[in-house]
Amino acid sequence: MITSVNNDRVKQVVNYIEKSKARREDDVFVIEGMKMLREAPVLQVREVYVTTRFLDKASEEDKEILWRYGAEEVSDEVMKKMAATQTPQGVIAVISQYHYTMEEVLEGYNQDDEGAKPLILVLENIQDPGNVGTMLRSGEGAGVTGIILSKGSADIYNPKVIRSTMGSIFRMPFIYVESIPEVLETLKANGIHTYAAHLKGEKNYDEFDYTHPTAFLIGNEGNGLTKETADAADTYILIPMKGEVESMNAATSSAILTFEASRQRRGK
Amino acid sequence: MITSVNNDRVKQVVNYIEKSKARREDDVFVIEGMKMLREAPVLQVREVYVTTRFLDKASEEDKEILWRYGAEEVSDEVMKKMAATQTPQGVIAVISQYHYTMEEVLEGYNQDDEGAKPLILVLENIQDPGNVGTMLRSGEGAGVTGIILSKGSADIYNPKVIRSTMGSIFRMPFIYVESIPEVLETLKANGIHTYAAHLKGEKNYDEFDYTHPTAFLIGNEGNGLTKETADAADTYILIPMKGEVESMNAATSSAILTFEASRQRRGK
Repeated sequence: MITSVNNDRVKQVVNYIEKSKARREDDVFVIEGMKMLREAPVLQVREVYVTTRFLDKASEEDKEILWRYGAEEVSDEVMKKMAATQTPQGVIAVISQYHYTMEEVLEGYNQDDEGAKPLILVLENIQDPGNVGTMLRSGEGAGVTGIILSKGSADIYNPKVIRSTMGSIFRMPFIYVESIPEVLETLKANGIHTYAAHLKGEKNYDEFDYTHPTAFLIGNEGNGLTKETADAADTYILIPMKGEVESMNAATSSAILTFEASRQRRGK
Repeated sequence: MITSVNNDRVKQVVNYIEKSKARREDDVFVIEGMKMLREAPVLQVREVYVTTRFLDKASEEDKEILWRYGAEEVSDEVMKKMAATQTPQGVIAVISQYHYTMEEVLEGYNQDDEGAKPLILVLENIQDPGNVGTMLRSGEGAGVTGIILSKGSADIYNPKVIRSTMGSIFRMPFIYVESIPEVLETLKANGIHTYAAHLKGEKNYDEFDYTHPTAFLIGNEGNGLTKETADAADTYILIPMKGEVESMNAATSSAILTFEASRQRRGK
């Protein structure tokens, strides 16, 4: 049982939570809460920490999971030190990072539907961790098959992203790339049509057919897509807005577009 | 020019930012940034503070606006003390709160379209200020005509809400109510059909006709709608989700539903 906040392993977990460099070097990230741990792929779980308080009132099933992972007991004080949240959930785990290839991202996540056509989200310089996490979560719900992020986007292993994904991080293939315009060429070569959400779009987003292989390009919260990326897209699409609203939150745009694709693919 | 962080007016603005009670007592809220100030209705602007640094590089038009409001110059240090954000934008203003009646909320905001049918959002115990703000913003974009919030929801004048609304706070009629089930009776009496986003929904959300007067009910982030409210709704609707996603972020659900209504009302 660890009771000292100066314990080396405790300091290391704090490092993983706070620094993307530390995560990258050791090829790990941190999840919080029993619900996330239950969803984590077993081979990727490296270390688990649990408070005595949590263990005492855990269900038999949760106890079994914690026992199998050789969870280390820690004091409430140590958990508070380690956790990224203000009210820690009593369970924290260090997980191996994912390394998807572009082929795997394009092949995609087809949990429900073996023959699902690609539905790709391309995120350019999305800065807000909550936005990236929400896009993974709503993306999975809409049937998105893979996510491509520019290097300038938030770190997907940031604890705020992880929390917002609500577990989608374990299932959605993703890849970071240097150049989005280059990737658009790869997408086109794979028969995937690229649609850029853009204020210059002349037709509304719901006037296109997304039952074919589709990629949606979503730009930075403040500046939208870079000119190079917008120029390289096949088609501009517009989300028409009423009132005096000038733009939509990036995660909102993403949900509107992917759920329109989902609606069309259900055969409406 | 105010240079002391202990100035009474400075302390009062800090109070307004931090405490919903202080805002309520003096019937005000605080906005930050020139963009927000430009959109604020002139009669509601009570006090404006601006840094010398901002004033020096302001456009002639912005200078004119600041001069007309009798903006008080403050030092960078004072602005930093007052602002809710880590990188203050140099302009802060105290604004009068809104007091809409239920009649005004039902009559609604019809900026673009005089004859628009009611499209109401009913928010029950939405806790996250970012979610409430995002719903106002995407709601305005989708043509929502009014918003009804339960008392248990986040304070709409919380600076985080204000920031996420991106100006929609100045245009969207809203009202806080004690009892949502009671309000649903009022809505029905006004010929407005109430749809509850609910996991028990048997039909998908896109199988209903929202060109008629419509209200969408969105529940708390963790617990969904209360049983009383769900029971009082006319119709349950389901947002079908793929993969292993169990629920959607409240602001995401709201955007998906209201933009489906917007799509239908454009005549698709």
